[in-house]
Amino acid sequence: MTTVGFIGLGIMGGPMAANLVAADFDVVGHNRSPAKTERFVARGGRGASSVEEAVKDADVVATMLPDSPDVRAVLTTVFDHARPGTLVIDFSTIRPDVAADLAAEGAERGFRVLDAPVSGGEQGAVDAVLSIMVGGAAEDFEAARPVFDALGRTVVHVGPTGAGQTVKAANQLIVAGTLELLAEAIVFVEAHGVDTAAALKVLGGGLAGSTVLERKGGAMLARDFTPGFRVELHDKDLGIVTAAAREAGVVIPLGAAVAQLVASLRAQGDGGLDHSALLKLVAQLSGRPGK
Amino acid sequence: MTTVGFIGLGIMGGPMAANLVAADFDVVGHNRSPAKTERFVARGGRGASSVEEAVKDADVVATMLPDSPDVRAVLTTVFDHARPGTLVIDFSTIRPDVAADLAAEGAERGFRVLDAPVSGGEQGAVDAVLSIMVGGAAEDFEAARPVFDALGRTVVHVGPTGAGQTVKAANQLIVAGTLELLAEAIVFVEAHGVDTAAALKVLGGGLAGSTVLERKGGAMLARDFTPGFRVELHDKDLGIVTAAAREAGVVIPLGAAVAQLVASLRAQGDGGLDHSALLKLVAQLSGRPGK
Repeated sequence: MTTVGFIGLGIMGGPMAANLVAADFDVVGHNRSPAKTERFVARGGRGASSVEEAVKDADVVATMLPDSPDVRAVLTTVFDHARPGTLVIDFSTIRPDVAADLAAEGAERGFRVLDAPVSGGEQGAVDAVLSIMVGGAAEDFEAARPVFDALGRTVVHVGPTGAGQTVKAANQLIVAGTLELLAEAIVFVEAHGVDTAAALKVLGGGLAGSTVLERKGGAMLARDFTPGFRVELHDKDLGIVTAAAREAGVVIPLGAAVAQLVASLRAQGDGGLDHSALLKLVAQLSGRPGK
Repeated sequence: MTTVGFIGLGIMGGPMAANLVAADFDVVGHNRSPAKTERFVARGGRGASSVEEAVKDADVVATMLPDSPDVRAVLTTVFDHARPGTLVIDFSTIRPDVAADLAAEGAERGFRVLDAPVSGGEQGAVDAVLSIMVGGAAEDFEAARPVFDALGRTVVHVGPTGAGQTVKAANQLIVAGTLELLAEAIVFVEAHGVDTAAALKVLGGGLAGSTVLERKGGAMLARDFTPGFRVELHDKDLGIVTAAAREAGVVIPLGAAVAQLVASLRAQGDGGLDHSALLKLVAQLSGRPGK
């Protein structure tokens, strides 16, 4: 039986660790706030009171944490206390350069490190249908297959260490931009007195169609911004996108503009809303806040 | 038998008029350059040497012309020479305010005018699977149904006169923006040494998925910018979008930015390429023109 040390049992990590238990992995979970560790134990996992305890006997270490500094801190502890040779899979969304640095540091100390950020949200985590973008060595990707297959549906090896984070950053650029384009289109047609539901139907059927329109269009027309994926998290991710683009010398005019708009939404106190609340900002910018 | 006077037998109008002939309409076609009228006659239509001749005995007048001034000129002739009561359907993509003005002018003179811009491109016209966004009175929309059904698959009445053009403008905003976001994402992942085909696969499977990615992603990776829909036409359409947004007081930050990028592409001599050539511009802006 493969033993997995799972660090970070939050909105995404909690259901992912539970799905590994359901797939017959021996999972030792740890979370900084003990209540989440207890909840995981109640769902059939084993609990650990420290990162060290969670990883010392593990065959695989998995992490799902908020941001680059959290991952750096936890992986430093992992490299000190897990057994060399252990497969280390970071599911967090962090900076590609940090992911590559940590993988190199881990490799020096005998660990096999993969960056494997996910897309699909809380529901995707619960239903084990995540998209997983994996960077690292091909043989490590194959070794991690059983873990990925218990968590996701679309699992793709996209390149060397850091590449998973790069593709996730591209994903977040496209998603934010597509939400903003849809928001602009909706406010535009509403201002012209058009039947907006009919408009979305015909837009969705042609080249303007997108998964964002399909999944978020109706809620946007109804001004229902219940998360879903929160503005404050997308703002963090767009910080990663713009930094990584800058570092690579890539110019992203729309990506940079939408990063500013998401930052404004957060600065105005809407960080807790769903990212489709970009519609609220476009309406406000257009002097139509009540609509 | 319903007689249709069809003005404008170009890339889109030619196959549309031919599809009306195939659906047993009596079609009298006219084009400014006689060669296109002759080609239409060879395909079973009747030819007319002037707008006046094409429309004087028609039950329905259809127009498919390049831009607002062309439509204004032709409809002025139509209102002078067609029989009052005639249904006038403009399939061109023009300014919503011009469409509304022309419809009002036609109504004063006893005509029933619809704006009915289409989406789906040359292939959609040939295959009679266009999306058609229709503005005008509900009873005129119903009267025009047999014509629409011979040309398109998704036919939606979206509001009063001008509303069809408004939705088409929103369509062109979203399509240009989505192409640009995809272009930025591709150059971004290429610059990071990622397996781009694998990246597009995983992006397409999640919230970043779109019809643009599905239909254009492969050709963009291969730098194949054969039109398709030309940059110069999308540039014209984005002029319509930005003018109509300005007129309605709607602020469209990404729409305005992508309009500038498409304008730059055209200014640099790439107006004849497919609009997915935005990738070429992003690569150039990022100092990677050879890639």
